[in-house]
Amino acid sequence: MTPDIDDIKKAREYRERMNKRIEESGHKPIQRFFALDRRTYMDGALDTKTKELLGLVASTTLRCNDCIFYHLERCIELGYTDEELYDALNVAMMVGGSIIIPHLRFAFDKIDQLREG
Amino acid sequence: MTPDIDDIKKAREYRERMNKRIEESGHKPIQRFFALDRRTYMDGALDTKTKELLGLVASTTLRCNDCIFYHLERCIELGYTDEELYDALNVAMMVGGSIIIPHLRFAFDKIDQLREG
Amino acid sequence: MTPDIDDIKKAREYRERMNKRIEESGHKPIQRFFALDRRTYMDGALDTKTKELLGLVASTTLRCNDCIFYHLERCIELGYTDEELYDALNVAMMVGGSIIIPHLRFAFDKIDQLREG
Amino acid sequence: MTPDIDDIKKAREYRERMNKRIEESGHKPIQRFFALDRRTYMDGALDTKTKELLGLVASTTLRCNDCIFYHLERCIELGYTDEELYDALNVAMMVGGSIIIPHLRFAFDKIDQLREG
Amino acid sequence: MTPDIDDIKKAREYRERMNKRIEESGHKPIQRFFALDRRTYMDGALDTKTKELLGLVASTTLRCNDCIFYHLERCIELGYTDEELYDALNVAMMVGGSIIIPHLRFAFDKIDQLREG
Amino acid sequence: MTPDIDDIKKAREYRERMNKRIEESGHKPIQRFFALDRRTYMDGALDTKTKELLGLVASTTLRCNDCIFYHLERCIELGYTDEELYDALNVAMMVGGSIIIPHLRFAFDKIDQLREG
Repeated sequence: MTPDIDDIKKAREYRERMNKRIEESGHKPIQRFFALDRRTYMDGALDTKTKELLGLVASTTLRCNDCIFYHLERCIELGYTDEELYDALNVAMMVGGSIIIPHLRFAFDKIDQLREG
Repeated sequence: MTPDIDDIKKAREYRERMNKRIEESGHKPIQRFFALDRRTYMDGALDTKTKELLGLVASTTLRCNDCIFYHLERCIELGYTDEELYDALNVAMMVGGSIIIPHLRFAFDKIDQLREG
Repeated sequence: MTPDIDDIKKAREYRERMNKRIEESGHKPIQRFFALDRRTYMDGALDTKTKELLGLVASTTLRCNDCIFYHLERCIELGYTDEELYDALNVAMMVGGSIIIPHLRFAFDKIDQLREG
Repeated sequence: MTPDIDDIKKAREYRERMNKRIEESGHKPIQRFFALDRRTYMDGALDTKTKELLGLVASTTLRCNDCIFYHLERCIELGYTDEELYDALNVAMMVGGSIIIPHLRFAFDKIDQLREG
Repeated sequence: MTPDIDDIKKAREYRERMNKRIEESGHKPIQRFFALDRRTYMDGALDTKTKELLGLVASTTLRCNDCIFYHLERCIELGYTDEELYDALNVAMMVGGSIIIPHLRFAFDKIDQLREG
Repeated sequence: MTPDIDDIKKAREYRERMNKRIEESGHKPIQRFFALDRRTYMDGALDTKTKELLGLVASTTLRCNDCIFYHLERCIELGYTDEELYDALNVAMMVGGSIIIPHLRFAFDKIDQLREG
C-alpha cells in the first residue's frame, strides 16, 4: 500500500509524512482514534512486548503489509528473536491459511532488512 | 494493485486500458456485471452523491485502494468537501479498525493530489 | 452472533446486558473505544443521519448481522424510508457480492419487524 | 445467519420466503443482481457442475454458512460424490486456514443430512 | 456457527462429534491439516501459553466465535487472568474495529461462563 | 505484495528467492505447512486441474494478487482456455462483488502476459 514499502527508509518517511498530514487536518475524531491506537500497546495487564506480538499476528491474519512492517519494527526493538517471530507468523499462517504465504515472504524479507539496517 | 497507483495519471490509464481489454473479451456475464455496477450509483431513492459516499466507505472498510481512489475521484467531482470526506473515512476506520490506517494515509494523499490536479 | 437475534427484544436485552457487563469490567481502553465509537456518529461535517447510513453500509459489507441490526434501528429512528435503506443495502451488495445475500435477507426481515414493532 | 440453519427444511423455507419478500419489494437493481447471480452458474465455457463447485469453494473461503449450504445442495443434485466435496472443502481450508474448520464441521454435517433427506 | 454455541456443553459436544465425523471420513489431507493445527500450539521458540493468546487474537480479528470460544477455553486452562484476556481482546478490537464489538460481548459472556463452570 | 508483480520474471524470482529463504530458516511447522500446501493440489477424488481452478477462485475471492498470479500460471500450464479462466473469475467476482474488479484487471493482464511469454 505504501509506495516503496520495499525500501524501508522510504516506507518510514511516507508513513511519518502522511501521519503528520492527517494530524494537521485537525479532524478531532481521527486524532482521538490515533491516540487510542498508541495507548493500546502500552503496559497493562499484558506488557507492551506481548501486545506488540499480538499486533503482529492481528496484522498478519488481516493481511496488511504496512501494519506487519510496523509491528515487526516494534517487535525487533523490543527484543524478539527471529525464531519467536517465525513462531508468531506461523500461528497467523495456520489460522489464516495459504493466502498468508505472500505476507510471510514479505515478513521474512523485512525481518532480514531490519536486522541488517 | 494497479501498478503506479501513486501516479494518478498512470493509474487512470491502466484502469481504462484494462476495462477496455475486459470489455473486448466479449464475456457477456462480466459485461453485465460491469453494467450493473455502473447503474448502482445512479439516482434512485438515494441520489448519486450519497451513493458515491457509501461506495467510498464500502471500499475503505474492504480495504481496496483502487476502489478508494475511484470513489474519491467521483466524490470530489460531486462536490464533497475535505471535511465531509474525512468524516466518511473516519466512520470506515472506526468500523474497520486500525488496519484501515494505511488506507487512510492513501486516501488523504489522493485527496490532496486530486485537489491539486 | 447474538443468541436469538431473530427475536428483536431478546437481541436488544442481550446487547444491553453485555455492554453493561463490559463497561463494569472497568477496562479503561475498552471503555474509551466504546466512547469513541458513540462519538463517531455525532453531527460533524456529515450529520448523524448520513453517518448512520455509512455505518449500515460498512456493517453490511463486513457482514456483521448484529451491527446491521443496530444501524437499521438507528436509521429507522432517524427517518429513512424503506426505499432508501434498500438502495444503501444494494450498494453494499454490489460492492461485497452475492455473499451479502443472506445478510440482505436478514436486513429485509429486520426492517419489516422494526416497522411493525 | 438464517435462523434454524441446522434444520434443513426451515432453512429452505426462510430462504424462499425472504427471497420472495425481496423480489416483491420491486427494487429493480436488487432484482437485476439476483437475476445475474442465477445466470452466473449456467453452462458457459465451464459447465454448471464445475461452476457450482467453484461457488462452494468461494463461499467456504468467505465463510458464509448459508452460501455453503446452498452450494452443497446444488453440488449434491449435480452428482458430486462425498470424496469430491471433501477435496473441494480441503482446498478452501488450505487457502483460508484453520478459521475454516467450524465451516468444515458445518459442511460435513449438512452433506450427511442432505444425503439422508 | 455451532448450533447452541451459547450452551457450552452442547457446543463442545457438537465440536467433538463433528471432529470425530471428519476424522472418520478418512480424508488424508484434512487429517494432516488437523494434525498440523494441533502441533502449531505446542511449545517452540514461543511457549504454548503465548501461542494460545495469539490464537485468540487471530480468531477475534477474523471474527469466528467458534474459534474464539476454543481459544478462550485453552487460555483459561493455561492460567490467563480476566484482565489479561481483556487486554488481548482489546488489541484485537483496536486492530479490527467496532465490527469486533459483538464478538467482544460473546467473549466476555463465555469467559464468565467458563469461570463459573 | 511482491515487489514488481507486474514484471512476471521478477515476481517469479522474488517468490523463489523468498520461498528458499523461508525453507532455509529451518522452521519445521512452516516447512510442514508448505509441504501440505503443495500436496493439496495433487490428484485425488478431484484431479489437479480442477483443484487449481478452485485455488484460483479461492485466491480471487480472498483478493490476493500473488496467489492469483500463481494459480493462473498453473491453470495455463494445465491447459485451461481464456474463456474457461474468465468464467472462473466471473464466479469469483459474482460471489465477492465489485471489490474484485481491480483483481479482474490484474488477472486479465497476467493471462495476456503469460500467453505471450
